[in-house]
Amino acid sequence: MQKTVSIKDIFSNPSDYLGQQVTVAGWGRTIRDQKQFCFVDLADGSCLPMLQVVATTDLSNYSELVKAGNGAALIVTGKIVNAPQGNRPVEMQAHTVEVEGISPSDYPLQPKRHTVEYLRTIAHLRPRTNLFNAAFRVRSEAAFAIHDFFHKRNFVYVHTPLITGSDCEGAGEMFTVTTLDQKHIPFNDQGEVDYTQDFFGKHTHLTVSGQLNGEVFAQAFKNIYTFGPTFRAENSYTPRHAAEFWMIEPELAFADLNDMMGVAKDMLQHIITHILKNCPNEIEFFNKFIDKGIKDRLEHVATADFAHVTYTDAIELLKQAKQDFKYPVYWGVDLQTEHERYLTEQLFKKPVFVTDYPKEIKAFYMRLNDDNKTVAAVDCLVPGIGEIIGGSQREERLDYLTKRLAENNLPQEEYWWYLELRKYGSTRHAGYGLGFERLIMYLTGISNIRDVLPFPRTTGSAEF
Amino acid sequence: MQKTVSIKDIFSNPSDYLGQQVTVAGWGRTIRDQKQFCFVDLADGSCLPMLQVVATTDLSNYSELVKAGNGAALIVTGKIVNAPQGNRPVEMQAHTVEVEGISPSDYPLQPKRHTVEYLRTIAHLRPRTNLFNAAFRVRSEAAFAIHDFFHKRNFVYVHTPLITGSDCEGAGEMFTVTTLDQKHIPFNDQGEVDYTQDFFGKHTHLTVSGQLNGEVFAQAFKNIYTFGPTFRAENSYTPRHAAEFWMIEPELAFADLNDMMGVAKDMLQHIITHILKNCPNEIEFFNKFIDKGIKDRLEHVATADFAHVTYTDAIELLKQAKQDFKYPVYWGVDLQTEHERYLTEQLFKKPVFVTDYPKEIKAFYMRLNDDNKTVAAVDCLVPGIGEIIGGSQREERLDYLTKRLAENNLPQEEYWWYLELRKYGSTRHAGYGLGFERLIMYLTGISNIRDVLPFPRTTGSAEF
Repeated sequence: MQKTVSIKDIFSNPSDYLGQQVTVAGWGRTIRDQKQFCFVDLADGSCLPMLQVVATTDLSNYSELVKAGNGAALIVTGKIVNAPQGNRPVEMQAHTVEVEGISPSDYPLQPKRHTVEYLRTIAHLRPRTNLFNAAFRVRSEAAFAIHDFFHKRNFVYVHTPLITGSDCEGAGEMFTVTTLDQKHIPFNDQGEVDYTQDFFGKHTHLTVSGQLNGEVFAQAFKNIYTFGPTFRAENSYTPRHAAEFWMIEPELAFADLNDMMGVAKDMLQHIITHILKNCPNEIEFFNKFIDKGIKDRLEHVATADFAHVTYTDAIELLKQAKQDFKYPVYWGVDLQTEHERYLTEQLFKKPVFVTDYPKEIKAFYMRLNDDNKTVAAVDCLVPGIGEIIGGSQREERLDYLTKRLAENNLPQEEYWWYLELRKYGSTRHAGYGLGFERLIMYLTGISNIRDVLPFPRTTGSAEF
Repeated sequence: MQKTVSIKDIFSNPSDYLGQQVTVAGWGRTIRDQKQFCFVDLADGSCLPMLQVVATTDLSNYSELVKAGNGAALIVTGKIVNAPQGNRPVEMQAHTVEVEGISPSDYPLQPKRHTVEYLRTIAHLRPRTNLFNAAFRVRSEAAFAIHDFFHKRNFVYVHTPLITGSDCEGAGEMFTVTTLDQKHIPFNDQGEVDYTQDFFGKHTHLTVSGQLNGEVFAQAFKNIYTFGPTFRAENSYTPRHAAEFWMIEPELAFADLNDMMGVAKDMLQHIITHILKNCPNEIEFFNKFIDKGIKDRLEHVATADFAHVTYTDAIELLKQAKQDFKYPVYWGVDLQTEHERYLTEQLFKKPVFVTDYPKEIKAFYMRLNDDNKTVAAVDCLVPGIGEIIGGSQREERLDYLTKRLAENNLPQEEYWWYLELRKYGSTRHAGYGLGFERLIMYLTGISNIRDVLPFPRTTGSAEF
């Protein structure tokens, strides 16, 4: 097709374009006929602000244009002229307009306010709204910032498998993956489902984490990260849970909890700095319409020191708090969001690492501390959201790990290869998980996970 | 832990390190005791070449070191000295060695040649070999090159869903995703499986492509790409098929087949150039041990023109070929790898775009040409492998698309949202798919897909 320029490029270099004739292709969000001329708000997806196009009745197909309908696809050639307005430094006087695709009057995205609930029912059109355009661009930029951060530090990116043959990490919350005919499930002599006839010759699930596989690669490449989908078959209707979501799981060999916390802090600050720099219009939009104060909060965290407190000290601080909590506070309890937010928002007023949790409330692979009561776990809490990162130093000592498996009633034979990492050239190592949707909610102020996922999968819903 | 430097950094800037005392942490691939001193080939995963460490009996724990075992984890502090050898410009004289983790003598990776078949059975250790270290670093770098390419061009990265509620794209080759108790499948009054009781309230599968969802985003952002896992439940034991693999699927609005071919060519050349620049040791390794000539081939394609021939002309050229093919050649047949390789390797001697295939052998969404016989499809063929990219201009005309759905016996109601993209602001658009593992095989010369996937999932096998 003919050569076009992007609206982003025009708005980034307005003086280069002033007086020039160029072609822009996009969608007319609104086409307003004023009889002698019409205004088109043209969006081409390259940036949030739209290019205002002015077309007059001199246009040979003026009547075609004004009947094309809001949402029509247009290819406009015209002159860029000086007409600053808000974040739009210039506008365009149309010379020719080609209607690429009309949009009938039943187009759902007419210029009025729609609820996010309604927009979820038209997930195939909602990226064309300002809110979702901004959200999904931030999502894309945040993904790039993460790859960029780890690539610069020579971390190897690993694609850990989605389908897993191990069902010992809480199978109740996992999806089964199968090619068995659901109408005619085969059974064996013992009356059990005969998974030897299934695709992989055994019962398989969708993974809940790439960590254990990630550790394999850390023991070869030292510094690695995963970035891929994970799954939870949890029946949950909250605004914070989805059945399919993306996770980033870095893993560092020859590293302890402090080394890991340093990387986690640098990563968060790198992502926030990248978004503030590359998505200023989007952040202004969220600050104005979604979460007043988010811009200040992000700018603060981008350069803040992070506090550090042990779980044991945090419990004492919470007990002393002059605030009523819904959930009781005592040593041994898992911290609730209200506790986390009190710590980071009220008490420290900055991000906080809470470390060294009771072993009973943490996973088997976390390294036992010398007190025999706590493990080298860490949660990173940020203002506005609470926990955003969870991690730990991993148990690298074979005998301790074997004991922890037994304590958790996990079968050693399922973990033979994970245990062998501790047998051959074992190293102190640590890693963490960052839920990508949680991050996007944090960066945008959007409060429902369904609105940061392109096509959310939640209990009872797998549309589009 | 104490501060360490990477072997990559030392080898990249040897003169900065000469005479300096530094600490390096890694694994001793081999520890060779020569009585008065010992040699350690230390790998830290930061690059392919290893650092040779020389330790003498002056070391207080010399006997501990020589008994640590091949594969042991070591933290070595010592002086960098001049001792160029192959791709290793310097070596290290050890001052202190801390044995972080021993490696008993039953360690499977003793210094001898292992078959790739055997190494697949120890997928938790094989990244520690040169071959897999090189393969998975190239994989990581290629992934980054792809993100970098699209990010620079302002393409939005979209995470299309893995779990899909649509089963009309060849359900026979799709995995079922379910939380139904496989031992007690519920049935409804009609005697059919009662999927209303399943997690999503209907029968769901793992996706075979993110394209249709990607088109949604292209109609809002203009230029987008996906990069995520896809699945095929095909019973196949070939070296080229896996049940779980990664795909890149860019989609361009306001674009025709030629525009798409331009992006595909630029992308391939960007990736190859990135790998040649960032993985020279790895490419040398593959050129030496896996596929002599791969370096020349990549360097050639990095700057080559791409030929362009229509399917119809390609069929004529194949008929005229002075070569016997196993599969017959006639208009209407799908091209086989032997045909593709003849075209790109023998005839054109460079990459070739073959376009405009018979509609009967291509998918319903490809744009019908004016001849009513062919569609605007394209395959990109490269020397050494054949097809590496498949794409098409998409049918943007509502009436044509509806007709093609009917011809393919696909239910219109399942595609209501896909059809609406053609109703509201439809644009000419095009996209393609690149199989990521196929790309890595192409970049490394590795001939089995099981050896470019970190933990391959294939018929009958979902280990680790």
